Amino acid sequence: MENTITFQPTDKTTISRLAKRGVYDRETVYAILDEALVCHVSYVSNGQPFIIPTGYGRSGDRLYLHGSVGSHFFRELANGVDVCIAVTLLDGLVLARSTFHHSVNYRSVVIFGKTELVTDETERWKALECFTEHVIPGRWAEARQPNASEMKKTMVIAVPLEEASAKVRTGGVGDDPEDMDLNVWAGVLPLTLMPGPPQPDAQLKAGVELPDYIKNYQR
Amino acid sequence: MENTITFQPTDKTTISRLAKRGVYDRETVYAILDEALVCHVSYVSNGQPFIIPTGYGRSGDRLYLHGSVGSHFFRELANGVDVCIAVTLLDGLVLARSTFHHSVNYRSVVIFGKTELVTDETERWKALECFTEHVIPGRWAEARQPNASEMKKTMVIAVPLEEASAKVRTGGVGDDPEDMDLNVWAGVLPLTLMPGPPQPDAQLKAGVELPDYIKNYQR
Repeated sequence: MENTITFQPTDKTTISRLAKRGVYDRETVYAILDEALVCHVSYVSNGQPFIIPTGYGRSGDRLYLHGSVGSHFFRELANGVDVCIAVTLLDGLVLARSTFHHSVNYRSVVIFGKTELVTDETERWKALECFTEHVIPGRWAEARQPNASEMKKTMVIAVPLEEASAKVRTGGVGDDPEDMDLNVWAGVLPLTLMPGPPQPDAQLKAGVELPDYIKNYQR
Repeated sequence: MENTITFQPTDKTTISRLAKRGVYDRETVYAILDEALVCHVSYVSNGQPFIIPTGYGRSGDRLYLHGSVGSHFFRELANGVDVCIAVTLLDGLVLARSTFHHSVNYRSVVIFGKTELVTDETERWKALECFTEHVIPGRWAEARQPNASEMKKTMVIAVPLEEASAKVRTGGVGDDPEDMDLNVWAGVLPLTLMPGPPQPDAQLKAGVELPDYIKNYQR
Protein backbone atom coordinates (compact mmCIF):
# COMPACT_ATOMS: atom_id res chain seq x y z
CA MET A 1 0.00 0.00 0.00
CA GLU A 2 1.40 3.40 -0.86
CA ASN A 3 1.85 5.97 1.85
CA THR A 4 -1.09 8.30 2.06
CA ILE A 5 -1.62 11.25 4.37
CA THR A 6 -4.65 9.53 5.82
CA PHE A 7 -5.18 5.91 6.80
CA GLN A 8 -8.05 4.42 4.86
CA PRO A 9 -10.57 3.38 7.54
CA THR A 10 -11.40 -0.32 7.36
CA ASP A 11 -14.03 -2.45 9.08
CA LYS A 12 -11.52 -3.05 11.85
CA THR A 13 -10.23 0.50 12.30
CA THR A 14 -13.38 2.55 11.87
CA ILE A 15 -14.29 4.09 15.24
CA SER A 16 -17.96 3.26 15.71
CA ARG A 17 -18.47 4.12 19.38
CA LEU A 18 -18.21 7.93 19.79
CA ALA A 19 -17.23 8.22 16.12
CA LYS A 20 -16.34 11.90 16.44
CA ARG A 21 -13.29 10.85 18.48
CA GLY A 22 -11.90 8.84 15.56
CA VAL A 23 -8.82 10.23 13.82
CA TYR A 24 -7.25 8.71 10.72
CA ASP A 25 -4.51 11.09 9.64
CA ARG A 26 -0.98 9.73 9.86
CA GLU A 27 0.33 12.90 11.50
CA THR A 28 -1.90 12.44 14.56
CA VAL A 29 -1.38 8.67 14.70
CA TYR A 30 2.40 9.01 14.44
CA ALA A 31 2.57 11.80 17.03
CA ILE A 32 0.87 9.48 19.53
CA LEU A 33 3.17 6.59 18.62
CA ASP A 34 6.22 8.81 18.96
CA GLU A 35 5.21 10.15 22.39
CA ALA A 36 4.21 6.91 24.12
CA LEU A 37 6.80 4.45 25.41
CA VAL A 38 4.92 1.16 25.73
CA CYS A 39 2.68 -0.69 23.32
CA HIS A 40 0.49 -3.72 23.96
CA VAL A 41 0.71 -6.41 21.30
CA SER A 42 -2.06 -8.99 21.05
CA TYR A 43 -2.06 -12.12 18.95
CA VAL A 44 -3.98 -15.35 18.78
CA SER A 45 -2.46 -18.71 19.63
CA ASN A 46 -4.65 -21.82 19.52
CA GLY A 47 -7.70 -19.58 19.43
CA GLN A 48 -6.69 -17.88 22.68
CA PRO A 49 -5.91 -14.15 22.89
CA PHE A 50 -2.55 -13.13 24.37
CA ILE A 51 -1.16 -9.68 25.17
CA ILE A 52 2.43 -8.66 25.74
CA PRO A 53 3.48 -5.14 26.77
CA THR A 54 6.71 -4.12 25.09
CA GLY A 55 8.70 -1.15 23.82
CA TYR A 56 8.81 -0.12 20.20
CA GLY A 57 10.15 2.38 17.72
CA ARG A 58 8.76 3.86 14.52
CA SER A 59 10.62 4.70 11.36
CA GLY A 60 8.51 6.04 8.52
CA ASP A 61 5.58 3.72 7.98
CA ARG A 62 7.01 0.82 9.94
CA LEU A 63 6.70 -0.01 13.62
CA TYR A 64 9.62 -1.99 15.07
CA LEU A 65 9.64 -4.38 18.01
CA HIS A 66 12.71 -6.15 19.26
CA GLY A 67 13.47 -8.88 21.73
CA SER A 68 15.58 -11.86 22.50
CA VAL A 69 15.86 -14.65 19.95
CA GLY A 70 15.17 -16.90 22.97
CA SER A 71 11.78 -15.32 23.68
CA HIS A 72 8.79 -17.54 23.02
CA PHE A 73 6.74 -14.45 22.15
CA PHE A 74 9.24 -13.15 19.61
CA ARG A 75 9.58 -16.58 18.05
CA GLU A 76 5.83 -16.57 17.49
CA LEU A 77 6.02 -13.11 15.93
CA ALA A 78 8.85 -14.26 13.65
CA ASN A 79 6.38 -16.57 11.89
CA GLY A 80 4.37 -13.65 10.53
CA VAL A 81 1.22 -13.50 12.62
CA ASP A 82 -1.76 -11.17 12.70
CA VAL A 83 -1.38 -8.73 15.55
CA CYS A 84 -3.38 -5.92 17.01
CA ILE A 85 -1.20 -3.32 18.71
CA ALA A 86 -2.51 -0.61 21.01
CA VAL A 87 -0.74 2.49 22.32
CA THR A 88 -2.52 4.59 24.92
CA LEU A 89 -1.68 7.95 26.47
CA LEU A 90 -3.74 9.00 29.47
CA ASP A 91 -3.91 12.80 29.60
CA GLY A 92 -6.29 13.50 32.44
CA LEU A 93 -9.26 12.64 34.58
CA VAL A 94 -12.49 14.36 33.57
CA LEU A 95 -14.40 14.87 36.80
CA ALA A 96 -18.01 15.67 36.07
CA ARG A 97 -20.68 16.52 38.63
CA SER A 98 -22.37 13.19 37.89
CA THR A 99 -20.47 9.91 38.05
CA PHE A 100 -22.14 8.97 34.74
CA HIS A 101 -20.35 11.75 32.86
CA HIS A 102 -16.95 11.04 34.37
CA SER A 103 -14.45 10.34 31.64
CA VAL A 104 -10.77 10.52 30.82
CA ASN A 105 -8.84 12.54 28.29
CA TYR A 106 -6.72 10.21 26.24
CA ARG A 107 -5.03 9.64 22.91
CA SER A 108 -4.89 6.07 21.72
CA VAL A 109 -3.84 4.26 18.57
CA VAL A 110 -4.83 0.80 17.40
CA ILE A 111 -2.86 -0.89 14.62
CA PHE A 112 -3.69 -4.07 12.74
CA GLY A 113 -1.02 -5.85 10.75
CA LYS A 114 1.02 -8.92 10.11
CA THR A 115 4.46 -9.19 11.71
CA GLU A 116 7.55 -9.47 9.55
CA LEU A 117 10.90 -10.84 10.71
CA VAL A 118 13.54 -8.30 9.68
CA THR A 119 16.64 -10.04 8.34
CA ASP A 120 18.40 -7.24 6.46
CA GLU A 121 21.27 -6.16 8.70
CA THR A 122 21.03 -2.51 7.70
CA GLU A 123 17.34 -2.37 8.55
CA ARG A 124 17.93 -4.29 11.81
CA TRP A 125 20.58 -1.75 12.84
CA LYS A 126 18.39 1.17 11.90
CA ALA A 127 15.48 -0.36 13.82
CA LEU A 128 17.54 -0.63 17.01
CA GLU A 129 18.72 2.93 16.57
CA CYS A 130 15.17 4.20 16.10
CA PHE A 131 14.04 2.13 19.11
CA THR A 132 16.67 3.71 21.37
CA GLU A 133 16.12 7.20 20.01
CA HIS A 134 12.37 6.77 20.46
CA VAL A 135 12.79 6.06 24.18
CA ILE A 136 15.48 8.64 24.87
CA PRO A 137 16.64 10.89 22.05
CA GLY A 138 20.39 11.42 22.15
CA ARG A 139 21.21 8.09 23.75
CA TRP A 140 22.22 6.11 20.64
CA ALA A 141 25.16 8.40 19.88
CA GLU A 142 26.49 8.22 23.44
CA ALA A 143 25.95 4.63 24.60
CA ARG A 144 28.09 1.71 23.44
CA GLN A 145 26.29 0.44 20.36
CA PRO A 146 25.54 -3.27 19.76
CA ASN A 147 28.37 -5.62 18.84
CA ALA A 148 28.09 -8.60 16.52
CA SER A 149 27.31 -11.06 19.31
CA GLU A 150 24.53 -8.82 20.71
CA MET A 151 23.05 -8.37 17.23
CA LYS A 152 22.86 -12.16 16.89
CA LYS A 153 20.92 -12.43 20.15
CA THR A 154 18.43 -9.78 19.08
CA MET A 155 15.37 -10.33 16.93
CA VAL A 156 13.81 -7.40 15.10
CA ILE A 157 10.20 -7.54 14.00
CA ALA A 158 8.45 -5.00 11.78
CA VAL A 159 4.78 -4.22 11.48
CA PRO A 160 3.85 -2.14 8.41
CA LEU A 161 1.69 0.83 9.36
CA GLU A 162 -1.08 0.33 6.82
CA GLU A 163 -4.20 -0.21 8.91
CA ALA A 164 -4.48 2.03 11.94
CA SER A 165 -6.61 4.65 13.61
CA ALA A 166 -6.49 6.92 16.61
CA LYS A 167 -9.13 7.83 19.13
CA VAL A 168 -8.77 11.09 21.01
CA ARG A 169 -10.72 12.79 23.78
CA THR A 170 -9.78 16.28 24.85
CA GLY A 171 -11.60 19.07 26.66
CA GLY A 172 -13.68 19.50 29.72
CA VAL A 173 -16.70 18.03 31.48
CA GLY A 174 -20.05 17.45 29.79
CA ASP A 175 -22.61 17.45 32.57
CA ASP A 176 -26.36 17.42 32.10
CA PRO A 177 -28.04 20.83 32.51
CA GLU A 178 -29.94 19.72 35.61
CA ASP A 179 -26.67 18.87 37.41
CA MET A 180 -24.92 22.20 36.83
CA ASP A 181 -26.04 23.67 40.13
CA LEU A 182 -24.78 20.82 42.32
CA ASN A 183 -22.20 21.56 44.99
CA VAL A 184 -19.69 19.24 43.35
CA TRP A 185 -16.26 20.29 42.11
CA ALA A 186 -16.04 19.68 38.38
CA GLY A 187 -13.12 19.98 36.01
CA VAL A 188 -10.12 18.19 34.63
CA LEU A 189 -7.14 16.82 36.52
CA PRO A 190 -4.31 16.59 33.96
CA LEU A 191 -1.95 13.61 34.18
CA THR A 192 1.56 13.43 32.72
CA LEU A 193 4.33 10.87 32.85
CA MET A 194 7.07 12.82 34.61
CA PRO A 195 10.71 11.99 35.22
CA GLY A 196 12.01 11.99 38.77
CA PRO A 197 15.59 12.75 39.86
CA PRO A 198 18.05 10.57 37.89
CA GLN A 199 19.65 7.83 40.02
CA PRO A 200 23.29 7.35 38.97
CA ASP A 201 24.73 3.85 38.98
CA ALA A 202 26.84 3.22 42.10
CA GLN A 203 29.82 2.39 39.88
CA LEU A 204 29.45 5.38 37.57
CA LYS A 205 32.90 6.39 36.35
CA ALA A 206 34.20 9.48 38.13
CA GLY A 207 33.81 12.65 36.11
CA VAL A 208 30.96 11.44 33.89
CA GLU A 209 28.32 14.15 33.99
CA LEU A 210 24.60 13.82 33.56
CA PRO A 211 23.85 14.54 29.88
CA ASP A 212 21.34 17.24 28.96
CA TYR A 213 19.12 14.72 27.15
CA ILE A 214 18.54 13.00 30.51
CA LYS A 215 18.42 16.20 32.59
CA ASN A 216 15.77 17.68 30.30
CA TYR A 217 13.93 14.44 29.54
CA GLN A 218 10.26 14.73 28.85
CA ARG A 219 7.58 12.89 26.92
CA MET B 1 -11.87 -21.77 42.25
CA GLU B 2 -11.32 -20.86 45.87
CA ASN B 3 -9.30 -17.80 46.72
CA THR B 4 -5.71 -18.67 47.43
CA ILE B 5 -2.89 -16.37 48.46
CA THR B 6 -1.01 -17.31 45.33
CA PHE B 7 -2.26 -17.73 41.77
CA GLN B 8 -1.55 -21.24 40.51
CA PRO B 9 0.73 -20.71 37.49
CA THR B 10 -0.71 -22.23 34.33
CA ASP B 11 0.75 -22.83 30.88
CA LYS B 12 -0.55 -19.40 29.92
CA THR B 13 0.55 -17.44 32.98
CA THR B 14 3.94 -18.97 33.74
CA ILE B 15 6.64 -16.40 33.00
CA SER B 16 9.14 -18.23 30.82
CA ARG B 17 11.27 -15.34 29.54
CA LEU B 18 13.30 -13.93 32.48
CA ALA B 19 11.45 -16.27 34.84
CA LYS B 20 12.87 -14.59 37.94
CA ARG B 21 10.70 -11.56 37.17
CA GLY B 22 7.53 -13.65 37.49
CA VAL B 23 5.33 -13.01 40.52
CA TYR B 24 2.23 -15.01 41.36
CA ASP B 25 1.06 -13.78 44.75
CA ARG B 26 -2.29 -12.03 44.79
CA GLU B 27 -0.99 -9.20 46.98
CA THR B 28 1.51 -8.09 44.33
CA VAL B 29 -0.88 -8.64 41.43
CA TYR B 30 -3.67 -6.71 43.17
CA ALA B 31 -1.37 -3.83 44.18
CA ILE B 32 -0.47 -3.35 40.51
CA LEU B 33 -4.12 -3.55 39.45
CA ASP B 34 -5.11 -1.05 42.13
CA GLU B 35 -2.42 1.46 41.17
CA ALA B 36 -2.82 1.49 37.38
CA LEU B 37 -5.68 3.32 35.68
CA VAL B 38 -5.94 1.74 32.25
CA CYS B 39 -6.08 -1.88 31.17
CA HIS B 40 -5.83 -3.32 27.67
CA VAL B 41 -8.40 -6.00 26.89
CA SER B 42 -7.78 -8.37 23.99
CA TYR B 43 -10.21 -10.83 22.51
CA VAL B 44 -10.59 -12.82 19.33
CA SER B 45 -13.28 -12.14 16.76
CA ASN B 46 -13.36 -14.21 13.57
CA GLY B 47 -9.84 -15.39 14.33
CA GLN B 48 -8.55 -11.81 14.45
CA PRO B 49 -7.03 -10.29 17.61
CA PHE B 50 -8.51 -7.02 18.87
CA ILE B 51 -7.41 -4.75 21.73
CA ILE B 52 -9.38 -2.09 23.52
CA PRO B 53 -7.91 0.19 26.20
CA THR B 54 -10.41 0.87 28.96
CA GLY B 55 -10.74 1.69 32.65
CA TYR B 56 -11.53 -0.90 35.29
CA GLY B 57 -12.05 -1.52 38.96
CA ARG B 58 -11.30 -4.45 41.22
CA SER B 59 -13.37 -5.76 44.08
CA GLY B 60 -12.00 -8.85 45.80
CA ASP B 61 -11.23 -11.47 43.20
CA ARG B 62 -13.22 -9.83 40.41
CA LEU B 63 -12.16 -7.28 37.85
CA TYR B 64 -14.94 -5.03 36.57
CA LEU B 65 -15.25 -3.26 33.23
CA HIS B 66 -18.11 -1.01 32.26
CA GLY B 67 -19.31 0.69 29.15
CA SER B 68 -22.29 1.70 27.12
CA VAL B 69 -24.91 -0.89 26.23
CA GLY B 70 -24.56 0.59 22.72
CA SER B 71 -20.86 -0.28 22.47
CA HIS B 72 -20.02 -3.00 19.96
CA PHE B 73 -17.08 -4.05 22.14
CA PHE B 74 -19.16 -4.39 25.30
CA ARG B 75 -21.84 -6.31 23.43
CA GLU B 76 -19.16 -8.81 22.40
CA LEU B 77 -17.97 -9.09 26.01
CA ALA B 78 -21.55 -9.65 27.19
CA ASN B 79 -21.56 -12.98 25.34
CA GLY B 80 -18.90 -14.44 27.63
CA VAL B 81 -15.69 -14.45 25.63
CA ASP B 82 -12.12 -15.41 26.42
CA VAL B 83 -10.08 -12.31 27.11
CA CYS B 84 -6.51 -11.55 27.95
CA ILE B 85 -6.16 -8.34 29.96
CA ALA B 86 -2.89 -6.53 30.54
CA VAL B 87 -2.09 -3.75 33.00
CA THR B 88 1.33 -2.12 32.78
CA LEU B 89 3.05 0.42 35.01
CA LEU B 90 6.25 1.96 33.67
CA ASP B 91 8.50 2.92 36.58
CA GLY B 92 11.68 4.08 34.91
CA LEU B 93 14.23 3.95 32.14
CA VAL B 94 17.26 1.82 32.89
CA LEU B 95 20.13 3.49 31.06
CA ALA B 96 23.06 1.11 30.79
CA ARG B 97 26.46 1.94 29.29
CA SER B 98 25.66 -0.40 26.39
CA THR B 99 22.48 -0.07 24.36
CA PHE B 100 22.10 -3.86 24.64
CA HIS B 101 21.58 -3.69 28.41
CA HIS B 102 19.13 -0.81 28.29
CA SER B 103 15.88 -1.81 29.95
CA VAL B 104 12.90 -0.41 31.77
CA ASN B 105 11.65 -0.88 35.28
CA TYR B 106 8.04 -1.95 35.18
CA ARG B 107 5.29 -3.82 36.94
CA SER B 108 2.82 -5.60 34.70
CA VAL B 109 -0.08 -8.01 35.15
CA VAL B 110 -1.61 -10.34 32.62
CA ILE B 111 -5.00 -11.90 33.32
CA PHE B 112 -6.76 -14.67 31.40
CA GLY B 113 -10.44 -15.25 31.89
CA LYS B 114 -13.91 -15.40 30.46
CA THR B 115 -16.11 -12.33 30.65
CA GLU B 116 -19.39 -12.44 32.57
CA LEU B 117 -22.27 -10.02 32.07
CA VAL B 118 -23.26 -8.77 35.53
CA THR B 119 -27.04 -8.58 35.86
CA ASP B 120 -27.50 -8.42 39.64
CA GLU B 121 -28.34 -4.78 40.41
CA THR B 122 -26.51 -4.80 43.73
CA GLU B 123 -23.31 -6.10 42.14
CA ARG B 124 -23.67 -3.66 39.23
CA TRP B 125 -23.96 -0.75 41.64
CA LYS B 126 -21.02 -1.98 43.70
CA ALA B 127 -18.96 -2.41 40.53
CA LEU B 128 -19.56 1.20 39.47
CA GLU B 129 -18.69 2.39 42.95
CA CYS B 130 -15.45 0.40 42.95
CA PHE B 131 -14.66 1.66 39.44
CA THR B 132 -15.01 5.30 40.52
CA GLU B 133 -13.17 4.78 43.77
CA HIS B 134 -10.38 3.00 41.91
CA VAL B 135 -9.80 6.01 39.67
CA ILE B 136 -10.20 8.68 42.32
CA PRO B 137 -10.84 7.63 45.91
CA GLY B 138 -13.37 9.89 47.60
CA ARG B 139 -15.26 10.77 44.44
CA TRP B 140 -18.20 8.36 44.72
CA ALA B 141 -19.45 9.91 47.95
CA GLU B 142 -19.32 13.43 46.52
CA ALA B 143 -20.46 13.16 42.90
CA ARG B 144 -24.09 12.69 41.88
CA GLN B 145 -24.50 8.91 41.74
CA PRO B 146 -26.15 7.10 38.80
CA ASN B 147 -29.90 7.32 38.34
CA ALA B 148 -32.13 4.57 36.99
CA SER B 149 -31.88 5.76 33.39
CA GLU B 150 -28.08 5.91 33.54
CA MET B 151 -27.91 2.44 35.09
CA LYS B 152 -29.97 1.13 32.15
CA LYS B 153 -27.49 2.59 29.68
CA THR B 154 -24.52 1.04 31.45
CA MET B 155 -23.24 -2.48 30.98
CA VAL B 156 -21.09 -4.06 33.69
CA ILE B 157 -18.79 -6.95 32.85
CA ALA B 158 -16.86 -9.05 35.37
CA VAL B 159 -13.73 -11.10 34.86
CA PRO B 160 -12.97 -13.53 37.69
CA LEU B 161 -9.35 -13.21 38.86
CA GLU B 162 -8.41 -16.87 38.72
CA GLU B 163 -5.60 -17.06 36.18
CA ALA B 164 -3.10 -14.21 36.41
CA SER B 165 0.52 -13.39 36.93
CA ALA B 166 2.72 -10.34 37.32
CA LYS B 167 6.12 -9.54 35.90
CA VAL B 168 8.26 -7.02 37.71
CA ARG B 169 11.64 -5.45 37.03
CA THR B 170 13.21 -3.20 39.64
CA GLY B 171 16.75 -2.05 40.35
CA GLY B 172 19.64 -0.63 38.46
CA VAL B 173 21.75 -1.24 35.38
CA GLY B 174 23.38 -4.56 34.58
CA ASP B 175 26.31 -3.73 32.32
CA ASP B 176 28.99 -6.16 31.21
CA PRO B 177 32.30 -5.89 33.15
CA GLU B 178 34.21 -4.71 30.07
CA ASP B 179 31.86 -1.71 29.68
CA MET B 180 32.16 -0.38 33.22
CA ASP B 181 34.97 2.01 32.40
CA LEU B 182 33.21 3.73 29.50
CA ASN B 183 32.58 7.46 29.67
CA VAL B 184 28.82 6.94 29.51
CA TRP B 185 26.35 8.08 32.15
CA ALA B 186 24.54 5.06 33.56
CA GLY B 187 21.67 4.83 35.98
CA VAL B 188 17.91 4.91 36.27
CA LEU B 189 15.56 7.71 35.27
CA PRO B 190 12.38 7.15 37.34
CA LEU B 191 9.04 7.87 35.68
CA THR B 192 5.77 8.56 37.46
CA LEU B 193 2.29 9.53 36.32
CA MET B 194 1.89 12.92 37.98
CA PRO B 195 -1.14 15.19 38.29
CA GLY B 196 -0.88 18.74 37.01
CA PRO B 197 -2.82 21.76 38.32
CA PRO B 198 -6.57 20.98 38.41
CA GLN B 199 -8.54 22.87 35.73
CA PRO B 200 -11.93 23.90 37.13
CA ASP B 201 -14.95 23.81 34.83
CA ALA B 202 -15.81 27.30 33.54
CA GLN B 203 -19.31 26.93 34.99
CA LEU B 204 -18.20 25.63 38.39
CA LYS B 205 -20.71 26.81 41.00
CA ALA B 206 -19.39 29.71 43.05
CA GLY B 207 -18.06 28.67 46.44
CA VAL B 208 -17.33 25.04 45.55
CA GLU B 209 -13.81 24.36 46.77
CA LEU B 210 -11.29 21.90 45.40
CA PRO B 211 -11.62 18.73 47.52
CA ASP B 212 -8.54 17.31 49.25
CA TYR B 213 -8.87 14.01 47.35
CA ILE B 214 -8.18 15.95 44.12
CA LYS B 215 -5.63 18.34 45.62
CA ASN B 216 -3.59 15.45 47.01
CA TYR B 217 -4.23 13.02 44.15
CA GLN B 218 -1.49 10.54 43.43
CA ARG B 219 -1.15 7.08 41.97
